[in-house]
Amino acid sequence: MFSTQTSPNWKRIAKDFEAILGEKGVIRRKEELLTYECDGLASYRQKPALVVLPRTTEEVAEAVALCDRLNLPWVARGAGTGLSGGALPEADSVLIVTALMRKILDIDYDNQRVIVQPGVINNWVTQAVSGAGFYYAPDPSSQIICSIGGNVAENSGGVHCLKYGVTTNHVLGLTVVLPDGSITQLGGEIPEMPGYDVTGLFVGSEGTLGIATEITLKLLKTAESIAVVLADFTSIEAAGAAVGAITSAGIVPAGMEMMDNLSINAVEDVVATGCYPRDAQAILLVELDGLDAEVAEVTRRVTQVCWENGARTVTVAEDAETRAKLWKGRKAAFAAAGHLSPDYYVQDGVIPRTRLAEVLGEIEALSQRSGYRIANVFHAGDGNLHPLVLYDNSVEGQLEEVEEVGGEILKLCVKAGGSISGEHGIGADKRCYMPEMFTDADLDTMKWVRDAWNPKGLANPGKIFPTPRTCGEGAVHPKAKAYPGVPQF
Amino acid sequence: MFSTQTSPNWKRIAKDFEAILGEKGVIRRKEELLTYECDGLASYRQKPALVVLPRTTEEVAEAVALCDRLNLPWVARGAGTGLSGGALPEADSVLIVTALMRKILDIDYDNQRVIVQPGVINNWVTQAVSGAGFYYAPDPSSQIICSIGGNVAENSGGVHCLKYGVTTNHVLGLTVVLPDGSITQLGGEIPEMPGYDVTGLFVGSEGTLGIATEITLKLLKTAESIAVVLADFTSIEAAGAAVGAITSAGIVPAGMEMMDNLSINAVEDVVATGCYPRDAQAILLVELDGLDAEVAEVTRRVTQVCWENGARTVTVAEDAETRAKLWKGRKAAFAAAGHLSPDYYVQDGVIPRTRLAEVLGEIEALSQRSGYRIANVFHAGDGNLHPLVLYDNSVEGQLEEVEEVGGEILKLCVKAGGSISGEHGIGADKRCYMPEMFTDADLDTMKWVRDAWNPKGLANPGKIFPTPRTCGEGAVHPKAKAYPGVPQF
Repeated sequence: MFSTQTSPNWKRIAKDFEAILGEKGVIRRKEELLTYECDGLASYRQKPALVVLPRTTEEVAEAVALCDRLNLPWVARGAGTGLSGGALPEADSVLIVTALMRKILDIDYDNQRVIVQPGVINNWVTQAVSGAGFYYAPDPSSQIICSIGGNVAENSGGVHCLKYGVTTNHVLGLTVVLPDGSITQLGGEIPEMPGYDVTGLFVGSEGTLGIATEITLKLLKTAESIAVVLADFTSIEAAGAAVGAITSAGIVPAGMEMMDNLSINAVEDVVATGCYPRDAQAILLVELDGLDAEVAEVTRRVTQVCWENGARTVTVAEDAETRAKLWKGRKAAFAAAGHLSPDYYVQDGVIPRTRLAEVLGEIEALSQRSGYRIANVFHAGDGNLHPLVLYDNSVEGQLEEVEEVGGEILKLCVKAGGSISGEHGIGADKRCYMPEMFTDADLDTMKWVRDAWNPKGLANPGKIFPTPRTCGEGAVHPKAKAYPGVPQF
Repeated sequence: MFSTQTSPNWKRIAKDFEAILGEKGVIRRKEELLTYECDGLASYRQKPALVVLPRTTEEVAEAVALCDRLNLPWVARGAGTGLSGGALPEADSVLIVTALMRKILDIDYDNQRVIVQPGVINNWVTQAVSGAGFYYAPDPSSQIICSIGGNVAENSGGVHCLKYGVTTNHVLGLTVVLPDGSITQLGGEIPEMPGYDVTGLFVGSEGTLGIATEITLKLLKTAESIAVVLADFTSIEAAGAAVGAITSAGIVPAGMEMMDNLSINAVEDVVATGCYPRDAQAILLVELDGLDAEVAEVTRRVTQVCWENGARTVTVAEDAETRAKLWKGRKAAFAAAGHLSPDYYVQDGVIPRTRLAEVLGEIEALSQRSGYRIANVFHAGDGNLHPLVLYDNSVEGQLEEVEEVGGEILKLCVKAGGSISGEHGIGADKRCYMPEMFTDADLDTMKWVRDAWNPKGLANPGKIFPTPRTCGEGAVHPKAKAYPGVPQF
């Protein structure tokens, strides 16, 4: 992709970056670089040669142009919470970190949009506008620490994306620094722009097409009313049937989450909500929002559908405090899984909603065959599974076996007509599974775009596409272990 | 973009196509080609050398591969109702018409999706699934005659796209024949697929990236309840304020349409609804859908907001018959404009909703300055204007003057932070206005994609991009006159 005749003179290069960004804008000391050797997928590790910290679009452009001139591969990094290794540095690369680009540049309530720098933390947006009755919808579980720039790169989802759509549905426009260092505008301030939808193309491109330096986001009005329904079931099949029946009734919940028995018990062991019956085979959490009258009616119907599909108990929370109580266990589920087992491997796959019970059955069979327990906590409404494979990393060979189990789960998802990634992206981690979903011809159409926008391949090499490296040939072995401290639900 | 040393031997070429498509799959007789010399924008005219009518993906692929081999430019055409000249043939080109690709291939109610061939007419989809309680949301006004393939090419909108989004929000996956004749899959059967969003890129690419031969669409559940609110106002400002206030109240109507005094009188002259007061300066039609309880509440609120913003009368229709009565005038508006004046020029531009009154005032000033009456009928909820400039084509020079007025309107839209196209596409008609919205650098990012997917430039040349030809250098003079019989509201 790139070729340097001799090893780059990083001391000299650091000076060049300092000329652009100042001394404080460049990090070169080994112990400081350690922070940046991985993102939320901590088992892939590679220190970059340099970390640079621009503050403005122009500084990003100058930094990228310098990389282009010197043929240095570079990787953009937001808050580093990504779970697919999308911000994994290359050896001898420059890591461009947006941590100093944390300004909310403009808020326009009349047109319901906000312009932010990429380093702005996801939930700062909602905090900034909630007083005026607005919010920003996509809510990855890491929203208190992840950045909007990273959300754009990975097209992040979240609990409330069932009703409101993922990041791409909320990005109106972007200022982008292209891999040659030039600055361009994609989209604008209104939803539909003429010409190709290059904004939509950029969102989810995982840093391979450039770096977004200003991001125009849609704002939504805060819902008048919110209710949460918690139902418990004596079988996964019944809970799955309730999910299907709610959807078939034409109801679009804000979020619809499921947890299985293993997760329920883990949660009750750790946070003791008292709300999730330990003998339930599945619980369903359904959040409904809208006007008072609408929420009252929809809540009544969801409750009824749950009863009709064999719910054993149904609890409804309307005030904020009770809602938080019902959500508490779900929000603690991943942390709780850490108490079931020394380590766990979190997978992210999608299946058609109608095949929930069937695929969960296959995952259970896989668990029994492999001998590894698998807890299931997931976005049931959009069929986005997050199986947690429990293991002990101190036992030789378990990690490798668990990785295989994770791969089998993805293959089950694809076989069911689903996807190898719901909301965490492909990054470095899953690129070897891309041929499970796409033929070479399908991938070629994406590569044509990458090669046109990123002709030297300097922008985030080794991500998304299975080539040039084939799986297992990476410089770092994919050890998919959760990064401590990053919420992943 | 392409070069042929000698003029193509069309007799020989026709034989080659017949070998693929059979004799009935190729049209060469001059009088039959006449039908295909323009689309809904009848003032651009150019006969193709050949029309070919494939029936399957494989036949399309063979036909396109033949064009590629012989370096023949080709243009895809659906039902030919487009209003921007997107299906305008080139001289010496092959027109690939999807009129024989009219099969609904698969319906999956459980997963709420349908797979269709591109020639399927828009409202056939809803007709096919309405018995089971579903519908296909995007509803261009030409929906009884326009095709899904054309909708995909132009990313068509419609009255109900305010709440549900335009075509791109409803396309899950595509089988595409690329300009080299190869077949590829974009997207799939679930909403979020990994890798670049090439499905979103293709939708709205106006035939320049290939031809969609199978299209997977989302189905929505039919709303339980629908209501229509008709309010009339003594000023455009008041109606515009009501639109803003409805949105600010967090209400998302299914559709929100406005008509001005000139349109109201045209409609009452022609269809005599009796519902639209002739002395009103503006009427607002707001459609609300959802659960019974929700619609009742939202209707109450919209009614109240209209009163608070100076409505003179407010009428609510809940049953289907009364709703149709309130809509009747709006649906007849474009046809009625034809009774105000021998000819009219329909424009399609977008402005931020907050600037409705201001821009309509500027359009009124432009009308007075130019001496041409301008009627306004439009999708107020998303700021998508459709000004109708009234003129007489039999008077020498009027068409040219009116085209200038149309161009001025687009410039007003751009100045207000809007767009030169809301839902009709750029096509051949508006490509010279693209530099009003985009810098060369912005357009380059789109061209990189075009050139990567369509390297010889054979797929639909002369569309979207202002170059290689500059404006006014086209082979056919842009005379933007409505094609009789094509509904355009």
